[in-house]
Amino acid sequence: VSTSKPDTATAEADCLRGIGSQRLWSRLMTLGEIGALADGGVNRQALSEAEIAAWQYLTGLAAQGTGRPIEVSTDAAGNLFLTLPGRYRDLPPVLLGSHLDSQPAGGRFDGAYGVLSALEVLLTRAERGLESERDLIAVGWMNEEGSRFAPGMMGSQAFAGAAGIDEIRTVCDADGISVGAALDHLHTVFAGLPRRALGFPVAAYFELHIEQGPLLEAAGTNIGVVSGIQGKKTWRIEIDGESGHAGTLAMRDRRDPLAAFARVAVALDNELGHADEQVKFTIGRVVAEPNAPSVVPRKLTFSIDLRHPDNAMLTRLGMQVEALCSANARSCSVRAVPLVDAPSNGFDPQLGRLIETAASAFGYSSMPILSAAGHDARYLAQVTPSAMIFIPCREGISHSPAEWSTPEQVGAGADVLYATLEAWLQTQNQERHDAS
Amino acid sequence: VSTSKPDTATAEADCLRGIGSQRLWSRLMTLGEIGALADGGVNRQALSEAEIAAWQYLTGLAAQGTGRPIEVSTDAAGNLFLTLPGRYRDLPPVLLGSHLDSQPAGGRFDGAYGVLSALEVLLTRAERGLESERDLIAVGWMNEEGSRFAPGMMGSQAFAGAAGIDEIRTVCDADGISVGAALDHLHTVFAGLPRRALGFPVAAYFELHIEQGPLLEAAGTNIGVVSGIQGKKTWRIEIDGESGHAGTLAMRDRRDPLAAFARVAVALDNELGHADEQVKFTIGRVVAEPNAPSVVPRKLTFSIDLRHPDNAMLTRLGMQVEALCSANARSCSVRAVPLVDAPSNGFDPQLGRLIETAASAFGYSSMPILSAAGHDARYLAQVTPSAMIFIPCREGISHSPAEWSTPEQVGAGADVLYATLEAWLQTQNQERHDAS
Repeated sequence: VSTSKPDTATAEADCLRGIGSQRLWSRLMTLGEIGALADGGVNRQALSEAEIAAWQYLTGLAAQGTGRPIEVSTDAAGNLFLTLPGRYRDLPPVLLGSHLDSQPAGGRFDGAYGVLSALEVLLTRAERGLESERDLIAVGWMNEEGSRFAPGMMGSQAFAGAAGIDEIRTVCDADGISVGAALDHLHTVFAGLPRRALGFPVAAYFELHIEQGPLLEAAGTNIGVVSGIQGKKTWRIEIDGESGHAGTLAMRDRRDPLAAFARVAVALDNELGHADEQVKFTIGRVVAEPNAPSVVPRKLTFSIDLRHPDNAMLTRLGMQVEALCSANARSCSVRAVPLVDAPSNGFDPQLGRLIETAASAFGYSSMPILSAAGHDARYLAQVTPSAMIFIPCREGISHSPAEWSTPEQVGAGADVLYATLEAWLQTQNQERHDAS
Repeated sequence: VSTSKPDTATAEADCLRGIGSQRLWSRLMTLGEIGALADGGVNRQALSEAEIAAWQYLTGLAAQGTGRPIEVSTDAAGNLFLTLPGRYRDLPPVLLGSHLDSQPAGGRFDGAYGVLSALEVLLTRAERGLESERDLIAVGWMNEEGSRFAPGMMGSQAFAGAAGIDEIRTVCDADGISVGAALDHLHTVFAGLPRRALGFPVAAYFELHIEQGPLLEAAGTNIGVVSGIQGKKTWRIEIDGESGHAGTLAMRDRRDPLAAFARVAVALDNELGHADEQVKFTIGRVVAEPNAPSVVPRKLTFSIDLRHPDNAMLTRLGMQVEALCSANARSCSVRAVPLVDAPSNGFDPQLGRLIETAASAFGYSSMPILSAAGHDARYLAQVTPSAMIFIPCREGISHSPAEWSTPEQVGAGADVLYATLEAWLQTQNQERHDAS
């Protein structure tokens, strides 16, 4: 359809200018103030007032762009889309992004970095007058973290059709507020935004993220070319017992779900948590009811997060969960509710090669890496060619106020995202020209 | 000082009329609606709006009395005093009462029954024109339960000088609200009330309560003559670890305080919770931070409640707590903060005999019983002759919405409280006449 061939030499030169890391860094630090905790961490959980404020900050940045205007829209799942229009609006767009929500005591980089970098790539292209055939969209997926509403990655799952929006809307937080009510509130605050169809066709997806692990830092490598994401299974386990007075209820008559939990947790940790060097087993959340010092609890609920890069091993370990819980709960009753069941997946190798080439054009070192953490890209990969770019983070620490990457590391990742997109667009143009 | 000898025959006849259980039962059920939960339980924690509403209900009942007026006052510790004046206001008064606060998911009887019965005794005496030499005071002690603010029995401890009011005021609830701020709020709502000196002299203390254990019901006995309270020690244990991402932090590098807690709790339960048939060991409260499913927690705090009727045994078991925690926490650090250290105590045997005689005058069966639960009477006994009367409760269940006693059981206990007071007052008059 296009008749003018893009000026490849100019595009390559632009590409090698990267995106100028100073403005991106400064915006990342500003975004980190939205939902900031006193210790430097961030509490910006999904669909909270803090995340709404983050949307306002992002849409404000989009409106300030000096190039072509960036269009803001959303969808039924509360995903945020910032679109730099291409020449042919009916072509499936390219998505770049991550998420704006954080853990209750999270850091400034996880998710926020990917969305801001995507917007920075779009703004930079607009400022430099670079046009593309397709729309380019910076996206912020709803509730990646899954801390306020479990499980996580709700926005990308709904977009990819991996979960139904009606079911997602019924999930409630600890205060009994449903995703549906929180989504409606978000859409009331942003009442003027056009609503896109859920799961529109996408040409490709790129997500830039901190590694959340120690490998890149340990190897002294600038860029991780993510080969895939390790498999993950999660459960909510409910142990029911019988409440009573701590001073009067005889020990032999007790059905104490907290005492049962302790035995269950030790058994799970022994059997699953030390199965091999690669397994990750975590109980991150525990809630006793009524949770009073002089009352034998009536109920205890806890979370299991189990991950392994090998799907067969993950399946084998996961099959033991329910039996280990029941066998160690003695007189209490146990219910194991499976939440996430995401096998390990591999990203598009062709996109991986583009990332590697882009990194090397800037003189950045790169290495293939398996993501130990889950990401929205897991679900996007089910509907479109997808890729992830990692940068190192200090000591591998994430989901913590201590999460940190340097301005140079942040800039390098954004450069590679910018150049990878450019290279991919050229490939597409080439394909379209070859086909025409 | 008194010149007219009381008409003993009339007093005995009045005593045997008891107090008419219907009105007391109806008021107990009404009080149970203040802070009521949907399942029939009560959430009326210390110094909450619900407890303030309970004060308003009680002071309203006091004002409706048809005999001599009942005076309402408070003190710096937020105790509530409803005083039926005696002939000689300078004599140390008799106190009868318990507490109005409940566990977060408590029942309608624990505490509330003792305060309402005390008020009912005063109102009945006033209606029947019975006068006493001393003031009679129905008291509601502040924060017996210790669920919102730990530890419990703050009001009676402050009154008895077992704890300083300045220290008590600094304790905070889970929302960071201090006892001091909550007390100031209470005193603002009840700004018109006279303030009594903390720890004024008291001639005797009587507390009527449900057993909170199964013994009276099992024995088919109407009244428990409480011989004493079993010893109790409590701790807050803090386990510090290091937070991290559940998907990326290698198991061998973790300092997971929740995994440590599970091992510690199993060790404590094995070593302390099964030391003999009489010990009670409870972990009722556990709080993980940040308590998110995909985050290795950075900190875990839990409660220990350890009780035993034998002081030597309680001391021996208590001395093992810190070592058992440290030995099982592996790479995490542990701090054990002792909160309550209350040895078992015995009540006044002479008052016990009055209770036994009063019960038998009504034809109620009675038996001596050791209280497994703590009560405000523990601290009153340090400053004045004190006694407790127990009634059976269904299946021994307490600190639960399922807590229940029948109208007949409730009436019998109040009858015995009424008659015991009358008998004690006569003893006192006799002593004073003999001495004059």
